[in-house]
Amino acid sequence: MSKALVLLSGGLDSTTVLAIAQSQGFECYALSFDYGQKQRSELVSAKKIAEKFGAVEHRVMRVCLDDIGGSALTDPDLEVPKFEENDEIPITYVPARNTIFLSFALAWAEVLDAQSIFIGVNALDYSGYPDCRPEYIKAYETMANLATKQSVEGDKIQIYTPLISLTKAEIIKQGQALGVDYSMTTTCYQANDKGEACGACDACVLRRKGFEQAAVSDPTHYQ
Amino acid sequence: MSKALVLLSGGLDSTTVLAIAQSQGFECYALSFDYGQKQRSELVSAKKIAEKFGAVEHRVMRVCLDDIGGSALTDPDLEVPKFEENDEIPITYVPARNTIFLSFALAWAEVLDAQSIFIGVNALDYSGYPDCRPEYIKAYETMANLATKQSVEGDKIQIYTPLISLTKAEIIKQGQALGVDYSMTTTCYQANDKGEACGACDACVLRRKGFEQAAVSDPTHYQ
Repeated sequence: MSKALVLLSGGLDSTTVLAIAQSQGFECYALSFDYGQKQRSELVSAKKIAEKFGAVEHRVMRVCLDDIGGSALTDPDLEVPKFEENDEIPITYVPARNTIFLSFALAWAEVLDAQSIFIGVNALDYSGYPDCRPEYIKAYETMANLATKQSVEGDKIQIYTPLISLTKAEIIKQGQALGVDYSMTTTCYQANDKGEACGACDACVLRRKGFEQAAVSDPTHYQ
Repeated sequence: MSKALVLLSGGLDSTTVLAIAQSQGFECYALSFDYGQKQRSELVSAKKIAEKFGAVEHRVMRVCLDDIGGSALTDPDLEVPKFEENDEIPITYVPARNTIFLSFALAWAEVLDAQSIFIGVNALDYSGYPDCRPEYIKAYETMANLATKQSVEGDKIQIYTPLISLTKAEIIKQGQALGVDYSMTTTCYQANDKGEACGACDACVLRRKGFEQAAVSDPTHYQ
């Protein structure tokens, strides 16, 4: 069995990705980050989800993105805005978040002798973050294959993004087929300690529309 | 004045880079990492050096590379080897270290609205680490310019590597001309708490040869 490192936030997308990686026969190592996010309950979800899907190991790494700031997801003085339909990158964007997360994944993958990294980025029903786009992921993979001892010695790193061009509804249908229980997942940018969602932020609105379009009953616990 | 973010380990190379960035008129923000390295004294050096060169701010970020392991620089069970002349990447290599460091630099740069990141990598008198080579840095820069809000909105990130093709002797001469006091710097992979060097590891041998070839008296405090 090949090893895969799966970035797992505890949300709808990354949980679906873990289910996909498992279904493809990978031995999965799940990686979450405590980056000072307001939605602390997503880490509780991640732990349960990693256990449910039989990840060999689940690690929560602490990274100090809250000290760096610049995002409504980490700064107590910046309010998480309600959903808005426009082309601007919203204030929930966290500077260099996926770059930092993938870099820790790259380091752990090298120690595990794993060459596969799964990440649940999506460039369709998403918040417009630059580090979710295919061109970014491709450039990251190119860089990663010049960065590490294992890659320069011939074990090429591959970054899998099975959701990147799916709609939220398609993601949900795929996850359902793989037995994902979406009531376990936490998507809301400001979920409370019980994991209950606000229903109004970008993440909540995209998720709810996804369930509607998939004609699947929405199992989210709202506040 | 343009802002620059300077990665500062407290060693000979990064100190020279800080001096270069200052001499080029940048307003410098110095960034060091407590990554569980054995040579703790380099962080003491970094603090003094950032002060001496008038960095606007010096931050030490904690990143858990010691939890990830896989390197003689962080794992107490792996001994730092003596210098050896060969083509293999030595066990002092730290998985994805520069990728992780640059990624935090990228995040902080975005919050500071800085577009310049300086890093003291060198691909001539070095330990053979893949993440010190020009092709790696170029790929990182390409990725960085797809990763952040500031880059996609038109403020291009530039990664400066003023030492990349210099010999250690050339680096020392350049630093001397800029007033660097190398007795303040800590290069040794296993410097003790007083900052005294072992004299035998790769880093020590490359540094000592550099002073010899530059015909500069070696100010290093040896154990």
